[in-house]
Amino acid sequence: MARVVVNVALKPEILDPQGRAVQGALSRLGLSGVMDVRQGKQFIIDIDGELEGDRADLLEKLAGELLSNPVIEDFTLTVEN
Amino acid sequence: MARVVVNVALKPEILDPQGRAVQGALSRLGLSGVMDVRQGKQFIIDIDGELEGDRADLLEKLAGELLSNPVIEDFTLTVEN
Repeated sequence: MARVVVNVALKPEILDPQGRAVQGALSRLGLSGVMDVRQGKQFIIDIDGELEGDRADLLEKLAGELLSNPVIEDFTLTVEN
Repeated sequence: MARVVVNVALKPEILDPQGRAVQGALSRLGLSGVMDVRQGKQFIIDIDGELEGDRADLLEKLAGELLSNPVIEDFTLTVEN
């Protein structure tokens, strides 16, 4: 079994109001020195067998089109075979 | 500067309808062998200076109370000092 972790985050130049709200809350609750907070999504995908070849290519493509919005988001994909 | 990554995921026994929807979509779009998908949140927190002592303890506490809902979610916290 392969476990694939896809992390999706807003591109650095896109404003992240959720992250900003978390940053404010952390500071108000006493955590000093918080410079930036970004909130993203994480998908943990369990796949039968090894992930390689066409299936790996397809998952990479779908991560960029289905799991993330390429206009405003970047993604990273990590495979643990 | 320290970068803290907090990953928040639903506990395994909690139904994840978003993950289920993604699982269905991946399969429909031609990816075979998808056994399970779980969707979680990721917070990337940049902190001034080193994170240690009281500040590290406070952030760990806030990750469990503010960033995640301890009734239905687990979190992992990774510090890159």
